[in-house]
Amino acid sequence: VEKFAVSAAILSASEPLVSLGLCEARLQADARWPWLVLVPRRAGAMEIEHLSLADRAALMEEVVLAGAAVRAIGSAIGRPVEKLNVGALGNVAPQLHLHVVGRRADDAAWPGPVWGFGRALAYDPLALARTREAAMGVLGAASIKNGS
Amino acid sequence: VEKFAVSAAILSASEPLVSLGLCEARLQADARWPWLVLVPRRAGAMEIEHLSLADRAALMEEVVLAGAAVRAIGSAIGRPVEKLNVGALGNVAPQLHLHVVGRRADDAAWPGPVWGFGRALAYDPLALARTREAAMGVLGAASIKNGS
Repeated sequence: VEKFAVSAAILSASEPLVSLGLCEARLQADARWPWLVLVPRRAGAMEIEHLSLADRAALMEEVVLAGAAVRAIGSAIGRPVEKLNVGALGNVAPQLHLHVVGRRADDAAWPGPVWGFGRALAYDPLALARTREAAMGVLGAASIKNGS
Repeated sequence: VEKFAVSAAILSASEPLVSLGLCEARLQADARWPWLVLVPRRAGAMEIEHLSLADRAALMEEVVLAGAAVRAIGSAIGRPVEKLNVGALGNVAPQLHLHVVGRRADDAAWPGPVWGFGRALAYDPLALARTREAAMGVLGAASIKNGS
């Protein structure tokens, strides 16, 4: 039986936050947007249709929770989120993962999508700490352990 | 009470297929990709979080169904889908709607997202008929009436 692990492509672009009931919730390593990545802990899954009905329902609820966390990040850094963008692409990193991104009409890519737009901006340590704290304020209660 | 209607921005970019249990399923008017749009029939909804728990679960299942329809379109036109892309953006058209798009490594925008990429390509009548037929082969059984 194949064992679940977050793929190298996702590991290299994000950092761990928490393990939720279904997904590893990770922070995208890009300070341009409040941006979480959800990776269902199901080995071999590449499409939403590969998940069971119960897992799909759980995924939907974790998307909503991640949206609340993204909104909390935006508020904490003084840039309240105006629109959530949710995407499951996987054209570059095939392991099933969902992006939940906080958008504003004054952000660099608006109204286009963030995926493939320019280059990631590294977090500075203070902004990263503030961002993690805001995200964990929402996600912490739903955590089953520290993320991987 | 506000009455549901598909917004003008979505009407102008897509055409009706069927009404599913929750969503209006529409065909994006862009022959470059097999591409469905799902619009939940909930007046005022702009984010997934605006839907009830039951509606969110239904939406997830209609996304999976739309994925099967998109795969059927790809097969019918001789370009089998290699990866599904699912997105809820709404930066341009704020009414809640989800995109389900069939991608291939040889498509024009790969591996980038389709949203905002180039200009829509109008369907010719024969390709449109074949596309509609393939989509309806999957969606027809789940239809509650003709779409709007």
